[in-house]
Amino acid sequence: MSASAYARNRPSRVLLAHGSGGRATAELIRELFLPRFANEHLSPLADAAVLPRVLGDHHPAGPVSRDDPPGHSSGGRLVLTTDAFVVSPLFFPGGDIGKLAVFGTVNDLAVSGAIPLYLTAAFILEEGLDLADLERVAASMAAAAEEVGVAVVAGDTKVVEKGACDGLFVTTTGVGRLHPRAGLGPSAVRPGDRLVLSGRVGDHGVAVLSCRPGLAFETTVRSDCASVAPLARALLDRLGPAVRWMRDPTRGGVATVAYELGGEAGLPVLLDEREVPVSPEVAAACDLLGLDPLYLANEGKLLAVVAPDSAEEAVRVLVESGASAAAVVGEVLPPGPGPLGRPGAYLRTGYGGTRPLEPLEGDQLPRIC
Amino acid sequence: MSASAYARNRPSRVLLAHGSGGRATAELIRELFLPRFANEHLSPLADAAVLPRVLGDHHPAGPVSRDDPPGHSSGGRLVLTTDAFVVSPLFFPGGDIGKLAVFGTVNDLAVSGAIPLYLTAAFILEEGLDLADLERVAASMAAAAEEVGVAVVAGDTKVVEKGACDGLFVTTTGVGRLHPRAGLGPSAVRPGDRLVLSGRVGDHGVAVLSCRPGLAFETTVRSDCASVAPLARALLDRLGPAVRWMRDPTRGGVATVAYELGGEAGLPVLLDEREVPVSPEVAAACDLLGLDPLYLANEGKLLAVVAPDSAEEAVRVLVESGASAAAVVGEVLPPGPGPLGRPGAYLRTGYGGTRPLEPLEGDQLPRIC
Repeated sequence: MSASAYARNRPSRVLLAHGSGGRATAELIRELFLPRFANEHLSPLADAAVLPRVLGDHHPAGPVSRDDPPGHSSGGRLVLTTDAFVVSPLFFPGGDIGKLAVFGTVNDLAVSGAIPLYLTAAFILEEGLDLADLERVAASMAAAAEEVGVAVVAGDTKVVEKGACDGLFVTTTGVGRLHPRAGLGPSAVRPGDRLVLSGRVGDHGVAVLSCRPGLAFETTVRSDCASVAPLARALLDRLGPAVRWMRDPTRGGVATVAYELGGEAGLPVLLDEREVPVSPEVAAACDLLGLDPLYLANEGKLLAVVAPDSAEEAVRVLVESGASAAAVVGEVLPPGPGPLGRPGAYLRTGYGGTRPLEPLEGDQLPRIC
Repeated sequence: MSASAYARNRPSRVLLAHGSGGRATAELIRELFLPRFANEHLSPLADAAVLPRVLGDHHPAGPVSRDDPPGHSSGGRLVLTTDAFVVSPLFFPGGDIGKLAVFGTVNDLAVSGAIPLYLTAAFILEEGLDLADLERVAASMAAAAEEVGVAVVAGDTKVVEKGACDGLFVTTTGVGRLHPRAGLGPSAVRPGDRLVLSGRVGDHGVAVLSCRPGLAFETTVRSDCASVAPLARALLDRLGPAVRWMRDPTRGGVATVAYELGGEAGLPVLLDEREVPVSPEVAAACDLLGLDPLYLANEGKLLAVVAPDSAEEAVRVLVESGASAAAVVGEVLPPGPGPLGRPGAYLRTGYGGTRPLEPLEGDQLPRIC
């Protein structure tokens, strides 16, 4: 939609859909925030900003980029990302808001090609929150940070009156250092490149929904909440610039990431529904609830675009690094006049047909992260 | 209070006092967060973390610390800080939550000796928030960021259902680069050092209270919400390591900062009430409301501890850099057996007596920032 069409049709108030990670979120960011904050680092709208400043170790002349291959002098650059977490409920099978806040921010750094180093954490607490719950969340954050090897170096705590927030919100910001072999970006994506996914989709979305009041249902599905930093790092270590682009398919799921990839790269992207791994439990829950697993949030999966002749190796590297069910799930197509030639995302369905993949229109799943 | 005494007396739920910036906040951080996140960078509990990594410019061998004086090799180090803003109402005389979020985080960097470079911003929006209000806030943030010369390089937006938050919360995280002449820290503070304040206190607290529903009163006081980065930088440029310690007296005011200084430095600190500038309007509002201006929040003031023979120059530098009413407001005393010899903070009152300065016990002013 053009800017002027948006201005004509835009709502006057914030809708839940503005937080869905779908079309309304993208419009809000593009129309309201970007024109005001426009700068070269923010505008790519990636998961994190890769900044010109270089992060060294104790001394500026240290070996920041010793292992850079020729032509890749970006190693060591500062990478920054931030995320607010408002998941409801605070505790869910397989995780909680604290674990999510650490891994979610670490994952945004990792898929941007950064080695995560530091986190900050800001807490907004509701008066009356059980301090035992806060302790559980803090312990969970600390364990997650230790697992990933990042230090929580700064924090803030605010309290609002009962009823002015829902229990606890956490905002984490992450600082990383660009991997010396990272050459990621939509402009690196080429026709023929393959989409490689690190595992089964939809677990986080189903796990959170399964304990929502009024929606609770019986399932054994647990959130996949985990760090993808080892996966991302192994891919960059082994494949370097043959890794073109990475993203963790959280809000809006794999379908939304494919849609964004097509838009950012300006190329048609074909996702093959039959190749996207989904567990039987998630498939059953989706049938029950009328949800599409391709649009469900994941919190421990990585989607990478890799050069065609590196796709099999990428799957192997992911599996060796602990990925549960890595697979090639799609490809980047050449642009052209045909039905699959326009930039954007397409789905080859389970029945073998193809159709355009659209972003989420509404508020399918508010407060999933 | 010792950890075990706290464990015996601790509340089981979050209280508004936990957000006051006073004793309960300090206890929550010390007892609940610090033991879990303990690391060398977090533990000083300063406004920002000064990290061992060095932030360079475009090339790691660049002139990061060329102008470091001998013995001050810390220039260029990465400095990180984060703050959640939950001020109510969102708009108040002299500012709004967006301006506050930018300057508040910039100020935490500045008083830590950093030159502010980058910000991230995470928004939690309540369903139904007027988008025109969000636009005003975004425009205000952008103007503040431009004024200070920082770029907002990453962001996030989440939406919660109506009633699950109060309009809009903003969390900003700031990245800066340590000034090459900064040698700040409680261990640099010496008996005889002077406390220098950049202007009148209490304006922000009174301005926000003046538009609270149920408390609205007539006043011309506007928030002092502004960047102190030029003041902090001028002090470091001119006085270098003669500047021992800086803080911006926000939540809890000048009194709380003096109390923290005494505790951190392990020295007695004497604040002279007669020298702390307060406008007649703020004094009148405090009389009306039964508040002490020394405990009221400021959002554009700087309190610096400087070497005794640099105090007058510090006042001059502050005034030349635009400070409204800079003054020497206290001093660090030598430790000893006398009544003013114990580490902590003391107030020389308007009547000439002295008494210990205590931190805020309760929830004097929730959601002031």
